[in-house]
Amino acid sequence: MGDPAGIGGELTLRAWQALHRDGPCFVAVDDPRRLAALGRDVPIKQVASADAASGAFAKALPVLPVSLPAWPKLGRPDAANAKAVIQSIEQAAALCLRGETSGMVTNPINKAALYDAGFAYPGHTEFLAALTGATGRQIMMLASPELRVVPVTVHASLRNSIAMLTTEAIVAAVRTTVQALQHEFGIARPRLAVAGLNPHAGEQGALGDEERTIIGPAIAALREGGIDVSGPWPPDTMFTARARSQYDVAICMYHDQALIPLKTLDMDRGVNVTLGLPIVRTSPDHGTAYDIAGKGVADPASLIAAIQLAAELGKRRANA
Amino acid sequence: MGDPAGIGGELTLRAWQALHRDGPCFVAVDDPRRLAALGRDVPIKQVASADAASGAFAKALPVLPVSLPAWPKLGRPDAANAKAVIQSIEQAAALCLRGETSGMVTNPINKAALYDAGFAYPGHTEFLAALTGATGRQIMMLASPELRVVPVTVHASLRNSIAMLTTEAIVAAVRTTVQALQHEFGIARPRLAVAGLNPHAGEQGALGDEERTIIGPAIAALREGGIDVSGPWPPDTMFTARARSQYDVAICMYHDQALIPLKTLDMDRGVNVTLGLPIVRTSPDHGTAYDIAGKGVADPASLIAAIQLAAELGKRRANA
Repeated sequence: MGDPAGIGGELTLRAWQALHRDGPCFVAVDDPRRLAALGRDVPIKQVASADAASGAFAKALPVLPVSLPAWPKLGRPDAANAKAVIQSIEQAAALCLRGETSGMVTNPINKAALYDAGFAYPGHTEFLAALTGATGRQIMMLASPELRVVPVTVHASLRNSIAMLTTEAIVAAVRTTVQALQHEFGIARPRLAVAGLNPHAGEQGALGDEERTIIGPAIAALREGGIDVSGPWPPDTMFTARARSQYDVAICMYHDQALIPLKTLDMDRGVNVTLGLPIVRTSPDHGTAYDIAGKGVADPASLIAAIQLAAELGKRRANA
Repeated sequence: MGDPAGIGGELTLRAWQALHRDGPCFVAVDDPRRLAALGRDVPIKQVASADAASGAFAKALPVLPVSLPAWPKLGRPDAANAKAVIQSIEQAAALCLRGETSGMVTNPINKAALYDAGFAYPGHTEFLAALTGATGRQIMMLASPELRVVPVTVHASLRNSIAMLTTEAIVAAVRTTVQALQHEFGIARPRLAVAGLNPHAGEQGALGDEERTIIGPAIAALREGGIDVSGPWPPDTMFTARARSQYDVAICMYHDQALIPLKTLDMDRGVNVTLGLPIVRTSPDHGTAYDIAGKGVADPASLIAAIQLAAELGKRRANA
């Protein structure tokens, strides 16, 4: 469901329109009344299980009901609905854990509204790690048709991201990424490109020393472990078409080093994948977009790509 | 000329092949013997003035001679030639100052080789500022058909770039950029987009405060001065095609924030323009590339674009 005041609901309806003929099949964990009100041209079918959803999907959007206590106003988040938002996440995770669905896709939430209701996690990812009993570190991969990126540091100021960067964090991110690429993305021997932190990857120390003190040792340790990893790459030239053909994923040192090239190349089809969970979880690469909620202009491409990728990863995981 | 051990010479020859029919006309300030040896299929014509070069250009590459004391070995810089490299820069600048050429284009140099010969400037730009008696601050703009960017901080580690960022530096960069866009790029009322420094432009302070303490005050001061400036923009979404249509230039907070989107969108046609000099100066957006010098594989697109842009800017400046 995501935040019912945001664009998640209308995108769910449009995703069904795009996918109901050829799949992949999905079930909304949402309030069926509010979905029906959002899109009178999309038939809604309340179901009691994921199995029932499969049978219904070709003809109607199947919905496992979650009841919103307050009627949602588009663009205006309401703390009264926070518990139901959390409940929809819990239900979707439970479906995955029981093997009734092959993965879950999260529509964007408003963390501030959930915090007010006592939500104790920084975001979706940490909540899902707790719900699924995940061990180890979760990391975010952004994937589009042109590029996959994994930022080693994420939601911190640029200054703090530099301070947080360690050899251990890079090694852990690469190892988790290799596992996922092999087992879920079907790449037997993945090639990983590790970015430098500084302009020109530090120019032999003239423009910064993290390449020598932090990044270089991580690459050396990973290579010794038999992983096909290259770098540190000069950040400004590693995202050209020619460079991208040389690796399967770019390991990036900070949020915008990863997100600028991804969104510049393909704003609308980027998908967020959480690696390191015992379940498959993807999400569209946008927020609640309150300013355009309900106006019919939000682009469903990223949610559709997130559903397709979750299905694909789930299938590979099941066959592994 | 640039460093005669690098790719500059072969690219100059290829630029003449691409431009000799329709122009713009240019004259190489270089050693004619080494150019002749590099490309036996390109006719070379030694000339004594820029005027003579115009007459010769359709039939041969005109060269104002600079004599290299040591025969250049491709891929191996030689300090014995450093003084001649410096002399070619001085001659080109003098041609511009005397109004005999409308601008100059610098092929890449090897600063280390020049330092050994007593060169006392950090790079081309500072040397040209001294040669031309420039007052004020010079800044670098990178321009491609898709995007123009101006990094406020340039050749420093990422950590130092953050430390060097000030409201004054942003204001000065924007003012210099506005002057150039109006008088040389022919944009009467330029629209400037100022990037944030942090992910999501700091998310109201949750992910860093430079947007509130440094960047926001710069934008406010510039707006009061009547400049059409927007921001701070979230860095990851400001380089999509849709976002780019809303501004003429992006003012960026650090090297890779500017260079990653520029090179990702168009690796081969980026041109470096120095703003804030009394003469027009452009350069290709690559280095000496010793590893491929003389192999005939270096791409002349950036040098050709640099020559074309210098001609265009010079014409507008002359008409202003």
